[in-house]
Amino acid sequence: MKDLKAFTEFKVRFSEVDSMRVVWHGNYLKYFEDGREAFGLQHDLDYLKLYDLGFLTPIVHTELDFKWPLRYGDTGVIETRLESCLAAKIIHHYRIYNAHTEKTLVTGKTIQVFTDIKGQLILNNPDFYQNWKKLKGLS
Amino acid sequence: MKDLKAFTEFKVRFSEVDSMRVVWHGNYLKYFEDGREAFGLQHDLDYLKLYDLGFLTPIVHTELDFKWPLRYGDTGVIETRLESCLAAKIIHHYRIYNAHTEKTLVTGKTIQVFTDIKGQLILNNPDFYQNWKKLKGLS
Amino acid sequence: MKDLKAFTEFKVRFSEVDSMRVVWHGNYLKYFEDGREAFGLQHDLDYLKLYDLGFLTPIVHTELDFKWPLRYGDTGVIETRLESCLAAKIIHHYRIYNAHTEKTLVTGKTIQVFTDIKGQLILNNPDFYQNWKKLKGLS
Amino acid sequence: MKDLKAFTEFKVRFSEVDSMRVVWHGNYLKYFEDGREAFGLQHDLDYLKLYDLGFLTPIVHTELDFKWPLRYGDTGVIETRLESCLAAKIIHHYRIYNAHTEKTLVTGKTIQVFTDIKGQLILNNPDFYQNWKKLKGLS
Repeated sequence: MKDLKAFTEFKVRFSEVDSMRVVWHGNYLKYFEDGREAFGLQHDLDYLKLYDLGFLTPIVHTELDFKWPLRYGDTGVIETRLESCLAAKIIHHYRIYNAHTEKTLVTGKTIQVFTDIKGQLILNNPDFYQNWKKLKGLS
Repeated sequence: MKDLKAFTEFKVRFSEVDSMRVVWHGNYLKYFEDGREAFGLQHDLDYLKLYDLGFLTPIVHTELDFKWPLRYGDTGVIETRLESCLAAKIIHHYRIYNAHTEKTLVTGKTIQVFTDIKGQLILNNPDFYQNWKKLKGLS
Repeated sequence: MKDLKAFTEFKVRFSEVDSMRVVWHGNYLKYFEDGREAFGLQHDLDYLKLYDLGFLTPIVHTELDFKWPLRYGDTGVIETRLESCLAAKIIHHYRIYNAHTEKTLVTGKTIQVFTDIKGQLILNNPDFYQNWKKLKGLS
Repeated sequence: MKDLKAFTEFKVRFSEVDSMRVVWHGNYLKYFEDGREAFGLQHDLDYLKLYDLGFLTPIVHTELDFKWPLRYGDTGVIETRLESCLAAKIIHHYRIYNAHTEKTLVTGKTIQVFTDIKGQLILNNPDFYQNWKKLKGLS
C-alpha cells in the first residue's frame, strides 16, 4: 500500500509575520490548507466534485506542534500525507520544513468528516471517495 | 438633513500587528467592515434583509490614508458616516482615532453598489433602501 | 486551589467567515488569543511585563476540536482556563460556546514555554511568573 | 526612461474567499504586498537593506478599484509598476488580472514614504534609493 504525499513550496509573506518577527502561529493552518489543496490536485482528489455531489468535509480536529519558527522571506515546504483509515474520515499529516536546511519546523494533523449539504454527519465513506481510494491502492 | 454616524470601540489584537509592531495596513479594512456593521445595527439598515430580498452590495472602491499607527493593546474608535447620495451607491466615510487621545489615525472611504444575486449591476436604489433613507430623513 | 478562568464575549466578523458561511477554522486561534489576553488582563498576568524582563512565551503546541460552527453575526463566548502545572509551561484550555444557547462549539488547548529574547528555552519558571502563581494561590 | 514592472502569478486560497464565494476585498492588499515584494526581488530593490540602513517605508495611502471578483481556485496575475517621482515617495500601481482570460479584475495604488527607525518622516530620498533609481534609469 502506497503512502500518498504531496510537497508544496511557499514563501513567507510579510503579512503572515507577527511582532515577534516570526510567522503568527495561526497562519500554519493556512499552510496546511495549501498542502491539502496541493495534495488533492496532485492525486486527483477533487473536492469541488465532492461538493457538487452534495458532500462537505468539515475539519473536526486539528493539532500543531511548533518546533522552530519561520521568518519573513523564508522558504518553507509543506509535506502533506494522507493517513489511510477505514472510518469515514480524511486524516492528513503535515510536516513543514525549511526548503534550504530541510530542518523540520512544524508538524500537525487534521481530521475531516463527511457531512451532507445541511451539515448532517455521514457515517460511511461516499462512493466517490471509496472509488478514489481503490484507484490509488489505499483500501 | 441629518448626518448619520456610528461609533465603534475596538482593541488591537496581537494577530493584527505586523513585524514593525504596528497594525498591518490591510487590517484597517476589517475595522472599516466592523464600522459598517455597527452602523447598520445602530441605524436599522439590515444587510441580511437586503440579501434576503436578492440584493448584494459589493465594494467597488476603497481608499485609505494612514497618518499614525495603532499598536498592540491600543484602543481605537471607528467613526462611520454615511454620505447621502442620489445614485444607487452606498458611500461610507471612516475615521479611526485613538480612544484616549482622540488623535485621528486613519481615514478612508468605501463605495458599494447594488447587484442582483448573479452579480448584475442594479442602477436604481432598491425600494427597501429608498424607504430606509426616507425613514432616516436622508432623501 | 482556585481554578482561574476568564470569559470573553465576541461577535463573528464578516471577514472571519468562509465560503461555507461558517467561521474559517483557523480563526478560532485568534479567538483563543483574545481569550488568553482577556485572561491576562483579568488576572494581572502582564505579558508585556514578561517581555520587558526578557522573556518570550511562544506557543509550542495547540489542538482544537470543532463540534458546531459559528456563523456571521453569531455571538460567542470564549472561556479561558489556566491549567496549573509544575513545569515551566503555560497551559490554557478554551471552550467557545454560543452566548445565547450556551451550546459548546469548539474546545482547545495551547501550551506555551518560556524562552529568552534569543529564543533559547528556559527550563525553570521565571520568578515573575512564580510569584504571580503564588499570589493567585496556584502553586 | 523605462517603466519598471513585475508580474506575479498566484492561486486564490480557500481561506481568502468570503461567504459570497469571492475573494474578501481586504485580501487584495495582501496580493499588492506580494506584488511589491516580487518587484523588489526582480529589480534588486532590497527592502531589508533599507531597513538595515535605518529606513522604514510605511504605506501612507492606498486605493483599490474592484471591477470583477476572483473566486476560489482562480489563478490571478499581479502586475506591479513603479511610478517614477521626484519626491521622497515610492508609488506603485497594481493591476490584477485573470491569468487565463487576461481580464482586468482589480486595480490599485500604494504610496510609501521614508521614515527613520523612530517613524520620523524623511523628506529626501535616501542615497541608497537614489542610487538604485539612477542604476535603473529612473531619475
